[in-house]
Amino acid sequence: MFKNILIVGCGLIGSSILRASINKKISKNFFVYEKSKKNIREIKKINKKIIILKKLDNKISDIDFVIIATPMSQYERVIPHLNKHLSEKSLITDVGSTKENISKLKNNSLSKSLDWIMSHPISGSEVSGPKYGSRSLFINKWCIVFSDKNKIKQKKLVNFWKKIGSKVIIMDEKVHDKIFSITSHLPHLIAYNLIKTAQDFQKIQKKDVIKFSAGGLRDFSRIAASNEIMWRDIFFNNKKNVINAINLFIKNLKSFKKNIENLDDKTLRKKLVNSKKVRQQILNLKQDIAKPDFGRDLN
Amino acid sequence: MFKNILIVGCGLIGSSILRASINKKISKNFFVYEKSKKNIREIKKINKKIIILKKLDNKISDIDFVIIATPMSQYERVIPHLNKHLSEKSLITDVGSTKENISKLKNNSLSKSLDWIMSHPISGSEVSGPKYGSRSLFINKWCIVFSDKNKIKQKKLVNFWKKIGSKVIIMDEKVHDKIFSITSHLPHLIAYNLIKTAQDFQKIQKKDVIKFSAGGLRDFSRIAASNEIMWRDIFFNNKKNVINAINLFIKNLKSFKKNIENLDDKTLRKKLVNSKKVRQQILNLKQDIAKPDFGRDLN
Repeated sequence: MFKNILIVGCGLIGSSILRASINKKISKNFFVYEKSKKNIREIKKINKKIIILKKLDNKISDIDFVIIATPMSQYERVIPHLNKHLSEKSLITDVGSTKENISKLKNNSLSKSLDWIMSHPISGSEVSGPKYGSRSLFINKWCIVFSDKNKIKQKKLVNFWKKIGSKVIIMDEKVHDKIFSITSHLPHLIAYNLIKTAQDFQKIQKKDVIKFSAGGLRDFSRIAASNEIMWRDIFFNNKKNVINAINLFIKNLKSFKKNIENLDDKTLRKKLVNSKKVRQQILNLKQDIAKPDFGRDLN
Repeated sequence: MFKNILIVGCGLIGSSILRASINKKISKNFFVYEKSKKNIREIKKINKKIIILKKLDNKISDIDFVIIATPMSQYERVIPHLNKHLSEKSLITDVGSTKENISKLKNNSLSKSLDWIMSHPISGSEVSGPKYGSRSLFINKWCIVFSDKNKIKQKKLVNFWKKIGSKVIIMDEKVHDKIFSITSHLPHLIAYNLIKTAQDFQKIQKKDVIKFSAGGLRDFSRIAASNEIMWRDIFFNNKKNVINAINLFIKNLKSFKKNIENLDDKTLRKKLVNSKKVRQQILNLKQDIAKPDFGRDLN
């Protein structure tokens, strides 16, 4: 499919793309640009033919596929090097979690001779780093590819994601940033906020809450252990939509509070039953499995 | 340990106690009082020696251990039968999720000759019914037993829970209801509220959010599929503490919102990093395992 792939930033997602690409023989050569020495040690274990680059210089002029997988706040530092050294036959993509900002950035800073078509694979975990990467991370998961004028390269990008196992859907960045403010950004913020609230409660009440976290708090703590740089970038870059989502959430929570204050059985129960419908839709769409969760096996 | 155990209400928790008790030979005879015909069919499959009662009448006069495992809103209907038919040598417990209300109820309605010592096993799931019960549900999980004047019977109750695998801790009901408002009741309410917010968003924006729920929303939808009767009872019975928890949560969320609005990198990142400490405490206390979660295997 390609001659020379370059992965810029090789953490959980970058190294999973690397592993999947090697496994599916997506390219002849595999280049990685990564700064962290710890990460480099892990990456070297994956495969001997991986070429580690210390600089983004003229060694990248023959790269035909670049995947940017650094935190989003690093993208603007990467672009000047791509502008200087990449050829116009190359294809660039990224795996950032918000898209309006990246779209603006590439319109403003990327050389007009280069093609950057955005991607967003919907996969990940609360852990970070190449140690946790997996070649099967993308299998049966959605990958969103963003519409581009260059339909030949767009097709090439879609085929790449399909080849490593993704289900691909084409979307517009405005729609994307709205949808993910609700399905991903708000849930993560809520998890962080719940843990903060438990910490504050523990401080004020001097009661040991962590010890009894198995009743619900535990599941949120896992989500709230996600990478802080990644999530700061997401919250800041999707500020407008995230704030709208927070406002809608607070409005609904105040209404729940009123139902509880008034012991409004009918309204409260209707809301609680309604949630089950969403769960059923999620199961029908195979976004989760129906197997009940009793807490993971601690024995 | 006992001659005749009676389980009143034999759903997920009741049937798990039943299974564990049979397995550990806790009693000579096993009685179950259950109204749902569907549940009775499931319970009969567990073991042939289980005796199903259709009424709480003079057949229960020889029961020496009663476990009430109905929704809490049913307790007041059960008590008159216990008053009428149980003997003073018996021991009563319950598995309700809030305790100040149950403490009041038994002080007001239970015959003074009977002993009811409260329990709260910290285990469960989003599923309901005896079909999902398991004899190992309580193994290595906390069970809270509430202090009582009758220390002999209290010891007996503690030994019962230990025998079926629980780690037991003695607590006061006021402290319990405060702690669990934060570790369990608030997280469940937040999950319900997040799903409600996603539904509202989908209605307003006419965008398909459920399809892309793998990025965070999915995990909350599981929790929000929990039994609505059980959770209505909890929210109503622990109203004061739950409302305090909601208020603290909203205060913190508004502060997060301000940090995002102001792009306040330092404060936001400090909060995000702090959450990881709680996660580490939860892992150290063996309330969860460190294995990363990439979404459950959908293949």
